[in-house]
Amino acid sequence: MKQLKNRNPAVPGFKAAGLDCGIKNDNIKDLALIISEVPAAAAAVFTKNRVVSPGVTWSRRALAKSGSCRAVIVNSGNANAVTGAKGLKDCDAITKKVAAELGIPQKEVFIASTGIIGVPLPSEKILKATPKLVSKLGKSANCWTDASEAIMTTDLISKSDRISYSFKGQRIVLGGITKGSGMIHPNMATMLGFIFTDAVIDSKTLKKALTEAADRSFNRITVDGDNSTNDCVAILANGKAKNAPIKSGTPAYREFLKALTKLCKNLASKIVLDGEGATKFVTVRVQGGKTRKQAYLIANSVATSSLVKTALFGEDPNWGRIFCAVGNAGTPFNPDKVDILLNKNLLLKNGSPTNLSQKKLEKVMKQHEIDITIDLKCGKEWEEVLTCDLSYDYVKINAEYTT
Amino acid sequence: MKQLKNRNPAVPGFKAAGLDCGIKNDNIKDLALIISEVPAAAAAVFTKNRVVSPGVTWSRRALAKSGSCRAVIVNSGNANAVTGAKGLKDCDAITKKVAAELGIPQKEVFIASTGIIGVPLPSEKILKATPKLVSKLGKSANCWTDASEAIMTTDLISKSDRISYSFKGQRIVLGGITKGSGMIHPNMATMLGFIFTDAVIDSKTLKKALTEAADRSFNRITVDGDNSTNDCVAILANGKAKNAPIKSGTPAYREFLKALTKLCKNLASKIVLDGEGATKFVTVRVQGGKTRKQAYLIANSVATSSLVKTALFGEDPNWGRIFCAVGNAGTPFNPDKVDILLNKNLLLKNGSPTNLSQKKLEKVMKQHEIDITIDLKCGKEWEEVLTCDLSYDYVKINAEYTT
Repeated sequence: MKQLKNRNPAVPGFKAAGLDCGIKNDNIKDLALIISEVPAAAAAVFTKNRVVSPGVTWSRRALAKSGSCRAVIVNSGNANAVTGAKGLKDCDAITKKVAAELGIPQKEVFIASTGIIGVPLPSEKILKATPKLVSKLGKSANCWTDASEAIMTTDLISKSDRISYSFKGQRIVLGGITKGSGMIHPNMATMLGFIFTDAVIDSKTLKKALTEAADRSFNRITVDGDNSTNDCVAILANGKAKNAPIKSGTPAYREFLKALTKLCKNLASKIVLDGEGATKFVTVRVQGGKTRKQAYLIANSVATSSLVKTALFGEDPNWGRIFCAVGNAGTPFNPDKVDILLNKNLLLKNGSPTNLSQKKLEKVMKQHEIDITIDLKCGKEWEEVLTCDLSYDYVKINAEYTT
Repeated sequence: MKQLKNRNPAVPGFKAAGLDCGIKNDNIKDLALIISEVPAAAAAVFTKNRVVSPGVTWSRRALAKSGSCRAVIVNSGNANAVTGAKGLKDCDAITKKVAAELGIPQKEVFIASTGIIGVPLPSEKILKATPKLVSKLGKSANCWTDASEAIMTTDLISKSDRISYSFKGQRIVLGGITKGSGMIHPNMATMLGFIFTDAVIDSKTLKKALTEAADRSFNRITVDGDNSTNDCVAILANGKAKNAPIKSGTPAYREFLKALTKLCKNLASKIVLDGEGATKFVTVRVQGGKTRKQAYLIANSVATSSLVKTALFGEDPNWGRIFCAVGNAGTPFNPDKVDILLNKNLLLKNGSPTNLSQKKLEKVMKQHEIDITIDLKCGKEWEEVLTCDLSYDYVKINAEYTT
């Protein structure tokens, strides 16, 4: 499938490095480090799964204590999840080592992992590689590519983006890297995202902005409907732009949120475009909702329906499955008011089929980007969920690997 | 996959017939009629989808009015769903015709449909075939097979069962036919079930028993997590057994409920065994729950996880995906107390992996029947959800057909 262009995510005052420390076979990069040269405000959002990796527990605690962060260490190939007491000890040892090598407080190190679960993390490999990783920070033109490659699992391509804007003459830069939510070879979906900005903004406001942006982007994508034990998105703001501090509810905040949301949405779209086995990029938009929750439940029901997703893969203009998934969302609405559009073609009006020709419909279904719009016509709220189709390759990737 | 044996579902005082009325191509049976020779108490449970077929609307209303039913008319090949005003008119015309041919009140006819949605029902074919269908009632040794075949869609085999028991010297018989929840070629999942008994029991008590039995059977199976516009299970009790009326809360009720639940569970298991593309029969049991709801949410999360289902298809002993799905159920529990067993082999104890050998695990995964037991160890409630794996054939069946 056509991919979105990767932009170099470099942001003033941040440095990156990535290398192969030996967790994965075949000399594939599996360890990334990103640091801020100066103290940075930080915030993060984590998985809603009740089973979380020790890395999530560690990072959540550290952020709660400090509200700031200087370094992000991430390994791929092993999720360090369901690893008993050793898991948290490994997090402690690694963050301690990174802190020592960088000369920063341990609580300012954020740690994340992705890969197989239930297998003890070979932390000795990470500890051994840390000095070399630190020495490589920002030393090569490819350092951001190295870092974004080192967090990949079943991702086919690395994912990064950058955006900048000016507010009252001040230029602010935001950059980010992410990895996919298609399930991880050989285990499960993990979505990781790391965002960096030179804006001056405190950690509380940063958390608010990240939460809002994630709810319009990372929390609105679905490849297979699963939340992993390790999902997280973190943001660091190092203040190098020297703008007037961004305060919640101000025009400066709204501009920042707009840029952050756009960056997050671009990164999230890259995940869907690289979804396991995906051949279609699908936007499910529910509009005319009474509440955002109603709109979200319906959009999510359509976007996670195996029936809808296999029909999209088969290019079968089967709008009945879409309407059925709308009805299955577990939220009330009036079926006799619903309109459904497929790439702007009206399929269903007030709950009844239109006489759109089968030929026209088949042509629409052959496109790579499919927009499904569902208008409930009972209010003004909307939600969008991005997804992909369900293909043979999805089953292949997830069934054929034997641990 | 190995199937459960079909038993002849004949029950004293009921007659059946099935034929090809021309909705489907290739002379495949698509119209069934089952009648009770005498008035019968009746009850039904319907889909929770907010979009329902006119047949569901019609039958729900008729049952609410009368509480009794003499005839059940069912067509396959066309779901008569999302068919606008014509849909309800068709139900009216068909039930009127069936009532006239049988000499019974129209409100005592139950109607159900399954098949493609969004296409007007060719009701004239049903109307034309009704006299012949009525004349065939009970006339051949195969009449119950004819009826159970006539309600099939993507089902590979017809499904019926029968059970009898004695209570205080009185023999009571229950029989039933059902069709599958694997999505219907070319459209969506519809599960239909029709149960007949000669017990003396009023419609209110019958409704209570059916609701309880369905919550341990038909409502606890999942092939792809979708609820169709047409799902229903109906039960007719004609009193031919002349037992003392079964009243709620009595030993007689408990015996009846036990038999009904067993029958429903057998029929529901047949649906899973014949699930689209299924190669494994999977029972997800959550025990030690604080509430039934908690146990159900967790069992359902595991049973509907695409990650778990593809791992089962691939015979990958990937218990991490199971634990992840447990955590994803959206209900609180203590991860450090959870045990997980696979066909009685302990995989996870108190949230940590046991050292069960990989070889042993691989052997377990090769079996056709997989029991996943999750013990929350925080109470006494339990729930079981039956499911199957997610295979290439599931995607093939649901993607390759183009309407």
